[in-house]
Amino acid sequence: MPHYVLTLSCPDRPGIVNAVTGHLLRYEGNILEAQQYNDRETDRFFMRTVFALAPESLAQVRAGFDTLARAFRMEWSLRDRGEPRRVMLLASKFDHCLADVLYRWRIGELPMAITAVVANHPRETYRHLDFDGIPFHHLPVEKGRKHEQEAALAALIEETGTELVVLARYMQVLSAELARTLAGRCINIHHSFLPGFKGARPYHQAHARGVKLIGATAHFVTADLDEGPIIEQDTQRVSHHDTPDDLIRIGRDIERRVLAQALRYWLDDRILLNGHRTVVFAV
Amino acid sequence: MPHYVLTLSCPDRPGIVNAVTGHLLRYEGNILEAQQYNDRETDRFFMRTVFALAPESLAQVRAGFDTLARAFRMEWSLRDRGEPRRVMLLASKFDHCLADVLYRWRIGELPMAITAVVANHPRETYRHLDFDGIPFHHLPVEKGRKHEQEAALAALIEETGTELVVLARYMQVLSAELARTLAGRCINIHHSFLPGFKGARPYHQAHARGVKLIGATAHFVTADLDEGPIIEQDTQRVSHHDTPDDLIRIGRDIERRVLAQALRYWLDDRILLNGHRTVVFAV
Amino acid sequence: MPHYVLTLSCPDRPGIVNAVTGHLLRYEGNILEAQQYNDRETDRFFMRTVFALAPESLAQVRAGFDTLARAFRMEWSLRDRGEPRRVMLLASKFDHCLADVLYRWRIGELPMAITAVVANHPRETYRHLDFDGIPFHHLPVEKGRKHEQEAALAALIEETGTELVVLARYMQVLSAELARTLAGRCINIHHSFLPGFKGARPYHQAHARGVKLIGATAHFVTADLDEGPIIEQDTQRVSHHDTPDDLIRIGRDIERRVLAQALRYWLDDRILLNGHRTVVFAV
Amino acid sequence: MPHYVLTLSCPDRPGIVNAVTGHLLRYEGNILEAQQYNDRETDRFFMRTVFALAPESLAQVRAGFDTLARAFRMEWSLRDRGEPRRVMLLASKFDHCLADVLYRWRIGELPMAITAVVANHPRETYRHLDFDGIPFHHLPVEKGRKHEQEAALAALIEETGTELVVLARYMQVLSAELARTLAGRCINIHHSFLPGFKGARPYHQAHARGVKLIGATAHFVTADLDEGPIIEQDTQRVSHHDTPDDLIRIGRDIERRVLAQALRYWLDDRILLNGHRTVVFAV
Repeated sequence: MPHYVLTLSCPDRPGIVNAVTGHLLRYEGNILEAQQYNDRETDRFFMRTVFALAPESLAQVRAGFDTLARAFRMEWSLRDRGEPRRVMLLASKFDHCLADVLYRWRIGELPMAITAVVANHPRETYRHLDFDGIPFHHLPVEKGRKHEQEAALAALIEETGTELVVLARYMQVLSAELARTLAGRCINIHHSFLPGFKGARPYHQAHARGVKLIGATAHFVTADLDEGPIIEQDTQRVSHHDTPDDLIRIGRDIERRVLAQALRYWLDDRILLNGHRTVVFAV
Repeated sequence: MPHYVLTLSCPDRPGIVNAVTGHLLRYEGNILEAQQYNDRETDRFFMRTVFALAPESLAQVRAGFDTLARAFRMEWSLRDRGEPRRVMLLASKFDHCLADVLYRWRIGELPMAITAVVANHPRETYRHLDFDGIPFHHLPVEKGRKHEQEAALAALIEETGTELVVLARYMQVLSAELARTLAGRCINIHHSFLPGFKGARPYHQAHARGVKLIGATAHFVTADLDEGPIIEQDTQRVSHHDTPDDLIRIGRDIERRVLAQALRYWLDDRILLNGHRTVVFAV
Repeated sequence: MPHYVLTLSCPDRPGIVNAVTGHLLRYEGNILEAQQYNDRETDRFFMRTVFALAPESLAQVRAGFDTLARAFRMEWSLRDRGEPRRVMLLASKFDHCLADVLYRWRIGELPMAITAVVANHPRETYRHLDFDGIPFHHLPVEKGRKHEQEAALAALIEETGTELVVLARYMQVLSAELARTLAGRCINIHHSFLPGFKGARPYHQAHARGVKLIGATAHFVTADLDEGPIIEQDTQRVSHHDTPDDLIRIGRDIERRVLAQALRYWLDDRILLNGHRTVVFAV
Repeated sequence: MPHYVLTLSCPDRPGIVNAVTGHLLRYEGNILEAQQYNDRETDRFFMRTVFALAPESLAQVRAGFDTLARAFRMEWSLRDRGEPRRVMLLASKFDHCLADVLYRWRIGELPMAITAVVANHPRETYRHLDFDGIPFHHLPVEKGRKHEQEAALAALIEETGTELVVLARYMQVLSAELARTLAGRCINIHHSFLPGFKGARPYHQAHARGVKLIGATAHFVTADLDEGPIIEQDTQRVSHHDTPDDLIRIGRDIERRVLAQALRYWLDDRILLNGHRTVVFAV
């Protein structure tokens, strides 16, 4: 039997879980996982549930749920877990995040359909990477013509039915307009422990400040640079011995695992937006 | 309105969550937190939920739940979260875990009623610790008379209505008999990352082996030494520079935080037994 | 034979280590530990060495070293490791760092002479803490009379021969003047991972930003608030479930261990200033 | 000027550092890095130093050092840091460690000459990996003919001038004989936090025991399975939710970074043997 993932959020009130589970039960949906969270500060309720269901019941479950959702003023999504989500990868010169995501995808660790690899550097830059049939697009950013490059990118996202754009150390700042278009479906990996060291050359900033740990942050992209909702972060110990180049090397490992973790959460519908923060149902 | 914590486990089957939430809803119980876990290996279902309820409805909720629980073959517990649980602390010469638990209790971080501090060393050993009215019992273990000491201890546990016994670096091995009596309600902190370095002098064992991290493990006590269900563990980096005495010093910090975490989980009914392993609803 | 600690920094050039070790060897000093660091960026050399020496040779070693140090333009210090350093602890309402430092001192983990505990709250606030003979001074900060309080504090530091002032969650900002007076000998624990969340209520700031890790920072105090040279930092994972109060609780553990680590480094002469950063010879 | 790395160990006694630095100074060697360690337990001294030297002085430095080393009964090695070391990679079906080491090598993070990739699976297994000209050898292990396979392997190691053999999740146990031949120059990555879970299927063992952290260990291979000197370890948090497959996935990340770290240490002559333990000059 196929598995489905239902995520929802709504104003908190008694009876939500009972209504949701009752609805699924009515169609013999069998709940396999469930996570809930009540934000006491905002009185908002968040839920994610995975259930097995006979596929012929799906249309009814969905239709009935729509009515239920309206009664509870839910934002919700119901997805077939077996249908791989469509993800586009954007990269620049440094390909450690790109190579890592591709590897994890190849061995089945990140179940998704990669719609394209897009870079502002030519294919040659990634000559040691096997794209295994994934279309590659070279979209260089020429001085004063960023707008055109973004238009081409937006068209590609549209055409390919891309659901998520991953900035895998893509070193171009998106325009406010494109950031808004991709709101909630564009993840960036920033190479610092935000909110420390926003903007350019964060490892050099970290070295200059003399911090004893460095970090990386995966976040949704918004029009406000490095201010989007944080999905995942991690840090690692460094010392006075470490030069900026050492920090860059150590940081590559942090970036790879933080981005992969954020992507895994997203692919498994574990991230819900809560204002400018995230609810991440990690387990 | 008072808060109650319901925990349960039972063979998995459809409808459990719906039945439980429906039952609580019927009496206007308002669910504040819920965690679930389906163990696919054993097909067993685990749940913890916190709900607010008018106290006059409690008897009915409990009675009705008893019927429901029988139908689902549940093991369950329903507890008033406002009633502090009764905990006894056992210590030996090293008092870092004892001092730490007492401090956390004093500032309200570990809400519990401490029924007694029991030690095989005299009160004088802990002269710098303010027990703040907690009864202290000196129960030394004399050669060949361990049985008598344990009888006195068991009597004290009984008399004081102690629900949980915490071995806060209590350096006496409990007899198999006492271990069985306290099954599921006695937590020990072992000063190694189990299953490595069981038994005596684990830091010396760790030093001799040349490990690069040391750890500590909080587990339920069973008749099998250092083999009980693990509740919480943590590790910390060490190096060739560290002597056994350094490991002991570094280890004190790990032990304190691992024991405190395990105790916090227990006090908040977050630990359920799953055979010889634990389900810990950490968040 | 007594142990001495020599620390020095100077412009880098060939022959420093040979000159230092040769000088110690001449008086039969036996080197037990040595750490060195060459900062390639600033071309400055840093060294710490621990050696055993017959006490009757000390005056000669010191006098000869003075000459050598001038030749190499060294800043240096030579200290008898057996003489406990004189440390003053400042606290406010929250006493977790104070209690922790006192405990570690009591069991010998932090070898020092505590000259005084000073607080802007009365002795009663810490009634559960055994000061074990350490003088306590209540120096409240009255509105508009901070200058007078600081004058009293400065006098006390002077009178007691205090070498290091530890702000153990002392919630008063030192005036620029006092900060300058205590340059390089006043350590603060800030309850965030600097440079993130400077200033007041950092856990509330962290919660509002939705970070997935929180941290603490021990640093030397300078006239620039939360901008002094960083000595030690650590972080811990949190989640959307954690309220500001949870962050405060989790943070207490981070603060305690970060401050204790920084203090241990200082007591063992492991921290050297390198501009507005630190060299910490951790092992 | 080229950089050289000198490592040595010898019985501890006064004057070692002075003699070594004096010798280098005589030939205008300029010390760039130095680490020392005195093992008080065994009274053995360990040192690593990096220095710049005019290449025409090398022969004299080496000859003179030989005399000095005999006087101090040193085991020592002096190596040109610019000459990449010769490393052979062995792999089996799972290629995450192999792919990771190759990636790090390609971007210059692990400066070495890879003499060969050897596998008991055919080239086709790694079809997505670009070996970039590195010779590949398929050496399958046929039932009852392991001896022959190892003879071929040993010959290849000999012929290629391989200095270090890396078992990058190579799932064949080396014979005692081959292990002895490769003593001190064969590194394995074991997928558990040793000494816990030696032998086969460690993630399944870890799951069965219910540990709350899993780990990986890089160690030198000896005839005693999983008992060789430990070089590097790390751990990561898991929970009751994680199935053996989840542990395998999480473990891949730990294995990759632990092996890469151990390899980096080895390539930079940071690992010295101290009986059946290691001294690792990490910084």
